[in-house]
Amino acid sequence: MFAKNNWYVAATVDELEDKPPLGRTICNEKIVFYQTESGKIHAVENFCPHRGAPLSLGFIQGEHLVCGYHGLVMGCEGKTVSMTQQKVDRFPQIKAYPVEARYGYVWVWPGDADKADKATIPKPLWADNPEWTVGGGMFHIHCDYRLMIDNLMDLTHETYVHRGSIGQPEIEEAPVNSRTQGDTVITERLMENIKAPPFWQAAMQAHNLDPDAPVDRWQVCRFNLPSQVMIDVGVALAGKGGLESAPEHQVGGVVVDFLTPETDTSMWYFWGMARNFMVNNSILTDQIRTNQMKIFSEDLAMLEQQQENVTRHPERHLLKLNIDKGGMLARAKIEQMLKAEQAAA
Amino acid sequence: MFAKNNWYVAATVDELEDKPPLGRTICNEKIVFYQTESGKIHAVENFCPHRGAPLSLGFIQGEHLVCGYHGLVMGCEGKTVSMTQQKVDRFPQIKAYPVEARYGYVWVWPGDADKADKATIPKPLWADNPEWTVGGGMFHIHCDYRLMIDNLMDLTHETYVHRGSIGQPEIEEAPVNSRTQGDTVITERLMENIKAPPFWQAAMQAHNLDPDAPVDRWQVCRFNLPSQVMIDVGVALAGKGGLESAPEHQVGGVVVDFLTPETDTSMWYFWGMARNFMVNNSILTDQIRTNQMKIFSEDLAMLEQQQENVTRHPERHLLKLNIDKGGMLARAKIEQMLKAEQAAA
Amino acid sequence: MFAKNNWYVAATVDELEDKPPLGRTICNEKIVFYQTESGKIHAVENFCPHRGAPLSLGFIQGEHLVCGYHGLVMGCEGKTVSMTQQKVDRFPQIKAYPVEARYGYVWVWPGDADKADKATIPKPLWADNPEWTVGGGMFHIHCDYRLMIDNLMDLTHETYVHRGSIGQPEIEEAPVNSRTQGDTVITERLMENIKAPPFWQAAMQAHNLDPDAPVDRWQVCRFNLPSQVMIDVGVALAGKGGLESAPEHQVGGVVVDFLTPETDTSMWYFWGMARNFMVNNSILTDQIRTNQMKIFSEDLAMLEQQQENVTRHPERHLLKLNIDKGGMLARAKIEQMLKAEQAAA
Repeated sequence: MFAKNNWYVAATVDELEDKPPLGRTICNEKIVFYQTESGKIHAVENFCPHRGAPLSLGFIQGEHLVCGYHGLVMGCEGKTVSMTQQKVDRFPQIKAYPVEARYGYVWVWPGDADKADKATIPKPLWADNPEWTVGGGMFHIHCDYRLMIDNLMDLTHETYVHRGSIGQPEIEEAPVNSRTQGDTVITERLMENIKAPPFWQAAMQAHNLDPDAPVDRWQVCRFNLPSQVMIDVGVALAGKGGLESAPEHQVGGVVVDFLTPETDTSMWYFWGMARNFMVNNSILTDQIRTNQMKIFSEDLAMLEQQQENVTRHPERHLLKLNIDKGGMLARAKIEQMLKAEQAAA
Repeated sequence: MFAKNNWYVAATVDELEDKPPLGRTICNEKIVFYQTESGKIHAVENFCPHRGAPLSLGFIQGEHLVCGYHGLVMGCEGKTVSMTQQKVDRFPQIKAYPVEARYGYVWVWPGDADKADKATIPKPLWADNPEWTVGGGMFHIHCDYRLMIDNLMDLTHETYVHRGSIGQPEIEEAPVNSRTQGDTVITERLMENIKAPPFWQAAMQAHNLDPDAPVDRWQVCRFNLPSQVMIDVGVALAGKGGLESAPEHQVGGVVVDFLTPETDTSMWYFWGMARNFMVNNSILTDQIRTNQMKIFSEDLAMLEQQQENVTRHPERHLLKLNIDKGGMLARAKIEQMLKAEQAAA
Repeated sequence: MFAKNNWYVAATVDELEDKPPLGRTICNEKIVFYQTESGKIHAVENFCPHRGAPLSLGFIQGEHLVCGYHGLVMGCEGKTVSMTQQKVDRFPQIKAYPVEARYGYVWVWPGDADKADKATIPKPLWADNPEWTVGGGMFHIHCDYRLMIDNLMDLTHETYVHRGSIGQPEIEEAPVNSRTQGDTVITERLMENIKAPPFWQAAMQAHNLDPDAPVDRWQVCRFNLPSQVMIDVGVALAGKGGLESAPEHQVGGVVVDFLTPETDTSMWYFWGMARNFMVNNSILTDQIRTNQMKIFSEDLAMLEQQQENVTRHPERHLLKLNIDKGGMLARAKIEQMLKAEQAAA
């Protein structure tokens, strides 16, 4: 259940830069992404109109994608440009997808091309901002992307799924607040006047804050359509206003999650961590990436086996507790969007 | 084709002792088995009532199983015990399965719990008997468990499937006798006044019997519902009465086979060898286990490809020869039991 | 889509010589091929009439195939010969397939046995001819065998699929001629008055031809039912008549392709190269085999992913360009043959 008339993250730009064409299915659309010699990014159906060969086995020639089977030269609009000794005017057109490289990601619009507006590609907080840096990775997961939304919009699972790494009893004990605020679904947890954990102590030190000072700590999950979850995490000197405190009193970051449906029961998970401290420390960036990869790996088996169970028992109604409210509100937004898309069609 | 209102072997006790919860499908029921800190064994559906997570990815806490996703505490009756900051009274119940650790095995009743009577768990000959010992292992096989019953209740295949190991022409040449005797289907083969083979010669020596004396040798397969086959094997000094002879004239053992359906075309095979000689010789136990594993492995490819052929040609009637009579009688008992179960429901 | 009343290559003879029985599916028929002790080759259904065991897990005993499960002795006509202590007269018969070892291949007729005529097994040019030698190999490919016919009967794909190995712009630039000539579909390309490429220069030298002399080069693909493509390749001194020139002016070979359907979307590909120069040079034979294997491997991913695309979009009409004409003519012959076979049935 996904709405195709949206911008989804399809890849990171470095998956295309100086690379062969990339075949990847997004929202059940089998697409080939490629970067031309001048650096432009394009996306067309991964199906050569000549004999159905996968264009992803082809190669880049100047501004065009050449089919690796018989050399059909495909244009970025899905119209055949040329083919040796052939008249190509009446060759059937394949679908071309609006696509844009921006903020380190390749964004694709798998639905009606004429509805795509690049101005609506969401701009992350850290983008084009020298005070921020970001690192991350990607997983292919065999589950409905909405199970991952549930996961990220719920504040309790860390205590269990990640009890060997970042989970702590304090997290579970802090009160949860989930609500919709305009286009955004928010789930937040605040822990006041506590001792900062080691990760944040180190960050405080780098910000010239006393690492032993009591802090207010926050975790604020923000879901936005079609399927991104940004989680503000950080600490501020206690009593200074938490996340809203002046920059000199706090240190923080954003857990980055772009969730892209592949099929109804599989997804691409682009994850990462953006931060506004020690932004030039690439060793720290790598350390955070490695830690995040371990932590997010712990979710994989759970989500994939949960998907198996849900597929096995479609008749069962899952519970909707207060801790699940964030996911429920997000799912409601998706259903609403999908209905609107279907009504318009 | 299996009757769920029965005790089946689901695991060996050492698969649970000081181990994480064990997810295993028995008769198409997806179950999680676990042992609590006090040592009790329980089995409930492998489906958390909260969000469908697999409880087998959870952990033991005291007497309870805790879901590894959001910490729901599941009770052994399938009723949620607690969940941090939640009222759990009205949480839907999941199925709990009657289960019992006995004789080294974990027995489960995948059908109607109120029909389960622990007094009907079959007690093997060797159980709780210091004069006997047993060793064995387990295989997962992609075939209908009834193909394995056929295999074990037929006296001919050893000559062919195991011609490199235990098969001998004498086996095939001995007359076969298959019959039903009360609840038991018996297939037996007796070889009179022959020289004992090396395995039994060693056993005779350990029993202070002359290993070169002529012996009467027996192989008696006994099938009992729902799906166990115990095979008496051994030798006695010739003319003393064979299997019925006085203990001081014979030496023998029991090939142990508990066959548990996983799905319609896959099974769990718990195999072993029980013996009443050299019972404290653990090196011998290991040797027998290793040999049995090799021998039973020879059946695997045969049974799995036989299943493929049978699935491919459901319209073909397989032959029912005299050598197949044991399997046929056993299958008839299963069908009868299944009809009774269906009639009662 | 294949016609079963045909001779297909099922194996190479060395897959059976002194080997255990070989289970292989041909045209959706699950067959076991075997060679008896006297050297005769037989093929029967891979299904024991006793209990459905795969006969390919059995063994050869004299002139018979013995089932590895219970020792049923199967005859080459699909009739049970004997089984210990059993009367086998009324055992159901299994299908026996006309089969013939000839020219290094095992040929099978998967259709109606009474229509099989061994005189119609096609005799390759090089067979039983000391002036020729041949080497090759086999691939299992997950595609409709007709996609491979298209591949071999089209003269353009080499430039792209094999651009790292044998592909050259000259190939694509040479005019193509496709036509039907009696039972044969021909696609040919002639390149006149060019410099011979290194492979043919070496061959010319071995034939006492001046390797630097200008040559006429040819590539002539010949498709014959049910599914073989033989490609004449070679060079002759320019102006001497090309492929038709006197033997002393030319050097050449034949790319050998026998394509055998396994199922509707998978096939066995028997490939090779026959040549009439340096026929005793087994090192050259091995070099050519290694090179061919590399080159044909380049087609595999393309064909298998093309199959996926075609399966995904059965509604799409693929283009039929002039370069595809050879494949189209071959497919038309197959359809015609299949219609005739269906009409006769």
